[in-house]
Amino acid sequence: MAEQSLTVPRLRGVTREQFLEHLYPQRKPLVLEGLDLGPCTSKWTVDYLSRAGGVKEVKIHVAAVPQMDFIRFCYVYFRTLPFNKLVQRAAEETHKEFFISEDVADIRQQFPSLGGDIKFPAFFKEEQFFSSVFRISSPGLQLWTHYDVMDNFLIQVTGKKRVTLFSPRDAHYLYLSGSKSEVLNIDSPDLDKYPLFPKARRYECSLEAGDVLFIPALWFHNVTSEAFGVGVNIFWKHLPSECYDRTDTYGNKDPVAASRAVQILDRALKTLAELPEEYRDFYARQMVLRIQDKAYSKNLE
Amino acid sequence: MAEQSLTVPRLRGVTREQFLEHLYPQRKPLVLEGLDLGPCTSKWTVDYLSRAGGVKEVKIHVAAVPQMDFIRFCYVYFRTLPFNKLVQRAAEETHKEFFISEDVADIRQQFPSLGGDIKFPAFFKEEQFFSSVFRISSPGLQLWTHYDVMDNFLIQVTGKKRVTLFSPRDAHYLYLSGSKSEVLNIDSPDLDKYPLFPKARRYECSLEAGDVLFIPALWFHNVTSEAFGVGVNIFWKHLPSECYDRTDTYGNKDPVAASRAVQILDRALKTLAELPEEYRDFYARQMVLRIQDKAYSKNLE
Repeated sequence: MAEQSLTVPRLRGVTREQFLEHLYPQRKPLVLEGLDLGPCTSKWTVDYLSRAGGVKEVKIHVAAVPQMDFIRFCYVYFRTLPFNKLVQRAAEETHKEFFISEDVADIRQQFPSLGGDIKFPAFFKEEQFFSSVFRISSPGLQLWTHYDVMDNFLIQVTGKKRVTLFSPRDAHYLYLSGSKSEVLNIDSPDLDKYPLFPKARRYECSLEAGDVLFIPALWFHNVTSEAFGVGVNIFWKHLPSECYDRTDTYGNKDPVAASRAVQILDRALKTLAELPEEYRDFYARQMVLRIQDKAYSKNLE
Repeated sequence: MAEQSLTVPRLRGVTREQFLEHLYPQRKPLVLEGLDLGPCTSKWTVDYLSRAGGVKEVKIHVAAVPQMDFIRFCYVYFRTLPFNKLVQRAAEETHKEFFISEDVADIRQQFPSLGGDIKFPAFFKEEQFFSSVFRISSPGLQLWTHYDVMDNFLIQVTGKKRVTLFSPRDAHYLYLSGSKSEVLNIDSPDLDKYPLFPKARRYECSLEAGDVLFIPALWFHNVTSEAFGVGVNIFWKHLPSECYDRTDTYGNKDPVAASRAVQILDRALKTLAELPEEYRDFYARQMVLRIQDKAYSKNLE
């Protein structure tokens, strides 16, 4: 189907120095194997999590999209549930993801008893840390393709996931609506509706318990859970702190300068709309050429 | 060389009503034959023009570009010359065009004795009239590919021209620098420098004495004079008067709303430039998608 499919490189036993000097600057996805994640990978069974997390009420964000069209058929909701119920429910259901959505979350503070079981890879400075989030997924769940604006380690603690990534440079093949791709069935897309989609280069990987996937900011990712599993996302700031939107809870609001640029662009488009179609089209194309000339990078792959 | 070459349609004996109802709204180039242009087509010899135009000093704009690179090697200059000298000079030289460049010109006022010899096609309202300009061309002159923002009749009074036109929708294949294409040798372009140029659809026509070429605003045109000849350009306003730049002398300044939109866009790009390259590139691409979605026409060919 896809014209090109690439395998995300897997590296074993990478040190902090190797990561920071040679890997991180490349801004490409990478699976890190054999990092010391603490005892969580063996300890975090359904029973253990239910006991250790206890009956603490958590606000959750339930995503249930086995490839439904999230635009016409939005099946995402928020609710409150005791943590132990949440874990048991996820283990029994299919096609659901339970994503604990406190205001800027940190599992080490929300669940001190569980926080002691997991070590975060020390591959960024503590002051860059933004959030850590539980992702408790039922088998079969496929989360739509989207990007986040922060760098992200997806720690696969238990279970198994298949992740497909797309480069930020291929965004124009992904039929975006905000930060999400409209193409839900990425393995067998509707080519009448999404003819350019196969041009997007796919980067594929499988995550097993103990694997850590580095998802650089802006890289699109689509995640399918192949078995019940617990993951932890760690988001951190790659840009200086002031670049990010202060009201961002989930690490997915565009940087301040980007949002402002789009707002200004909308004013330009409103001005252009004063002209009849033929002229508007022509000058819109000139504006595109100008953006490509002035703001596109010649160095990025 | 070119992938596609189309012939500009030629129509004989078109009436004002036919033009306005059926042809003008299509916004495509067209050669009109057999219009009543008055006695100019037979009368305007070098001798007659020299006598009738007399020694009146005219400011002229001399373009001498038999395919030179006008960016590195700008061979365009302004000077003042008596009209009779100008006509004789053009008839003797090669590769030059003498374009009388008064402030917003009207040959009927500049040369009342010649103005009586030519009838302008009455295919627009008198209040839409912008300017009429002499173009006195030596054989071999090739004028670079450019667009004007006003509608234009190129009246071939004497001599012979070959005109190649390109649609405004193909602007992105033309390597523009302002309103001009950088590709000077359109018949044998440097494909290392201009690889996309052959994708631009070419519309070709030959003009003989008595032919009138309708060049819709924004259509790119490249004009080669095959013999000494006199042409008259008539520019008129297609848009409401207030859309045009009041300081426009030659009918080639972009409409006010278009210039303002580009200025606003530049502010957006300045804001975007606060972000590191990777983010700037990404959001620049998002901006392009936004322009394509909001301002490109789906109806234009």
